[in-house]
Amino acid sequence: MLNRGHKQDPIGVFDSGIGGLTVVREIRKRLPEESIVYFGDSARVPYGTKSKKTILRFAEEDINFLQKFQVKVIVSACFSISSNALEELGKEFQEPLIGMINPGVNALSGKSSSKVGVIGTNATIESKAFEKKLKDKFRGLDIYSAACPLFVPLAEEGWTEGEVPELIAKKYLEPLLARNIDSLILGCTHYPLLHSVIKKVVGNKVEIIEPGKEAAKILEEFMDDNDLRSKGDGSLKVYLSDIPRNFDRTVVNFLGERPAEIELVHLQD
Amino acid sequence: MLNRGHKQDPIGVFDSGIGGLTVVREIRKRLPEESIVYFGDSARVPYGTKSKKTILRFAEEDINFLQKFQVKVIVSACFSISSNALEELGKEFQEPLIGMINPGVNALSGKSSSKVGVIGTNATIESKAFEKKLKDKFRGLDIYSAACPLFVPLAEEGWTEGEVPELIAKKYLEPLLARNIDSLILGCTHYPLLHSVIKKVVGNKVEIIEPGKEAAKILEEFMDDNDLRSKGDGSLKVYLSDIPRNFDRTVVNFLGERPAEIELVHLQD
Repeated sequence: MLNRGHKQDPIGVFDSGIGGLTVVREIRKRLPEESIVYFGDSARVPYGTKSKKTILRFAEEDINFLQKFQVKVIVSACFSISSNALEELGKEFQEPLIGMINPGVNALSGKSSSKVGVIGTNATIESKAFEKKLKDKFRGLDIYSAACPLFVPLAEEGWTEGEVPELIAKKYLEPLLARNIDSLILGCTHYPLLHSVIKKVVGNKVEIIEPGKEAAKILEEFMDDNDLRSKGDGSLKVYLSDIPRNFDRTVVNFLGERPAEIELVHLQD
Repeated sequence: MLNRGHKQDPIGVFDSGIGGLTVVREIRKRLPEESIVYFGDSARVPYGTKSKKTILRFAEEDINFLQKFQVKVIVSACFSISSNALEELGKEFQEPLIGMINPGVNALSGKSSSKVGVIGTNATIESKAFEKKLKDKFRGLDIYSAACPLFVPLAEEGWTEGEVPELIAKKYLEPLLARNIDSLILGCTHYPLLHSVIKKVVGNKVEIIEPGKEAAKILEEFMDDNDLRSKGDGSLKVYLSDIPRNFDRTVVNFLGERPAEIELVHLQD
């Protein structure tokens, strides 16, 4: 049975690092009065290059940490977790879970897409999670996937415009463009930072879909349907397992602001 | 007091992931009869973007694992660990430790370098470990450093030749070339894989130094001086905390062969 918690409880969001703050940004735009507790496993980031087994084990530990805060709903902001471990996590934990795959798939509803591209980490693409759910939902849709592993370090290094990211984006996206895709799902928390480079490469004929925006909408609808909306102060508490070296620069790129409260925690302590 | 172990014991090598296998490769070339136990913390890789505190904590756990094998000497193959934590580790552990910074510095001896470039991860470059030791050893030497964070994911993705790595190498190395460096220390386990691209960018006037080669030499000399050489079967046992997705491709790139024995371990179990 789901344990939905109480409306005054915070929303829990977790991610392999600070990339999930791009999702928090969307949640805060849509639900400014909700309190959010965020955990980013920045000591073990990235997850997207690691095995399914390790991703699941880490995600369990991440959720165990969030449970300390009596969260009313948990958002798995990381696409590598959502695509590799959400089913198992759903069986294991009582809290309602919202992942990133369904939002990415739902975002295509009402659009006339017939050929969609999906990009993400190696873990996300190899899982075929998007492919399976897109096929289930949209008959006759052609789906073309590509792993873009260098996009994460590019976004983390702040190389989000100029010839290097453009050249890399071309290498990754040209095989999809050759298939005449009409829409492109950005299946990784980091990719919204590369939106303008990706736009430049794919052109105006391809619609770019950011599942984080749709995830915030699905979260809002879920909370409305389950009487979980609160009128709080919209506080955001960020817990991280490491304060990475590029933190000061990247946190503002991802979240759009500097979080008021940041605390360092060790999961194994 | 140092606890040197016995000559029949294996050499322990540890690293943040599988990059340290480039150092193992050099050790095996020079010391083919020695047994080696390797631990790569591939579940938490990379370390080079993480804080000094986290690097030290992880390295302690890595060494704790190696201690189970009664290793006679421990090689810290990771430059991010060697530059950020070796001093503390040396105080804490009894086994003789060989890091990567002294080998990099020693490799410059007998050369007529007057302007050296040092490249590495953010952790290595920010530590200024190379800079301090180079200044201590060589009076009047000009030292120019540059962090090259995208080199690690490039090497891991196998993008070691072609226009993308060349363009990135140019961006990183041109500021050093503008200072007329005559030698360049590759201060990261992954960079030997990019040797030819780096060579193409820096040209023939700049000598490229791979500290891994010198580390193997220093290890040999240390073992000779301390009666630690054995005539064994040259076995190599590789322990990893995750079998990463790109493992099959990358392991051969790094080690030059496929290790006969690979075992998955969890440090926290």
